[in-house]
Amino acid sequence: MVSNLFGGSAKQSQYIVIVGCGRLGSLLAGDLSSQGHSIVVIEQNESCLGNLSSEFSGFSVVGDAAELATLRQAKVDKADCLLAVTSEDNINLMVAQIARTVFEIPIVLARVFDPDREAIYQELEIDTISPTQLSADLFLQRLGERFENQSQQSAK
Amino acid sequence: MVSNLFGGSAKQSQYIVIVGCGRLGSLLAGDLSSQGHSIVVIEQNESCLGNLSSEFSGFSVVGDAAELATLRQAKVDKADCLLAVTSEDNINLMVAQIARTVFEIPIVLARVFDPDREAIYQELEIDTISPTQLSADLFLQRLGERFENQSQQSAK
Repeated sequence: MVSNLFGGSAKQSQYIVIVGCGRLGSLLAGDLSSQGHSIVVIEQNESCLGNLSSEFSGFSVVGDAAELATLRQAKVDKADCLLAVTSEDNINLMVAQIARTVFEIPIVLARVFDPDREAIYQELEIDTISPTQLSADLFLQRLGERFENQSQQSAK
Repeated sequence: MVSNLFGGSAKQSQYIVIVGCGRLGSLLAGDLSSQGHSIVVIEQNESCLGNLSSEFSGFSVVGDAAELATLRQAKVDKADCLLAVTSEDNINLMVAQIARTVFEIPIVLARVFDPDREAIYQELEIDTISPTQLSADLFLQRLGERFENQSQQSAK
């Protein structure tokens, strides 16, 4: 569990909509829920809601988040923030765009697997996180550390 | 491109086998290749080799990395390091295990999507990187920053 990151002067409880309930979505839903935020998870595949941990105390909506009716059902118009974290870049982009332009949600973050696509999101003022780039950076860092350790050991 | 992480006292050129040529594998292959390392990429689906960038100057082997014959063709017995980065946790675990036990490769790193599985790898002395956990941590951090900024702006 991650410690409460919204301390300080930030509003205590936020209304957060999470689109996608795979590993990442369910992890975020559990953490943010345990921090006292109000969470609604939107997921197309009902069986994925089983990924939600016991920490999760929010609501879930089964449906296609690219449809306005589903977003309205999740009361997206009242959300402080939306996280688009399905496993499909196209869906994340579309939902994030609707959240910004139609519902004017102030904070929209999206997962994007293809690092080459991040530029499109930036133009739309959508904040992106790329697991691919993050992983690559960490692989290279770890590898550097291992090689360094190894050469120090063989020098002894 | 990532700067050369293997400076200092580490051996200059390493022989690195990368299993999986999706987005992450091809990104790593390009970066490590441009740093002057000898890279062999193993990929089952020949069309994925098209992901390799122009920076890549290594070799590729088309085949199933869970088969010893494929690993031998990639001269895994001579490798300083193996990175198992396919999109399948099971394949990454199997290949990483063979690399450690059969070929005794000193440095083995594996991508694992399911954070709950990391414990299995640790028992086998395989270093793991979980894109899911990495992304969750960064999403929570960014979200905290955004909420903090927002509350500072509304306080003005």
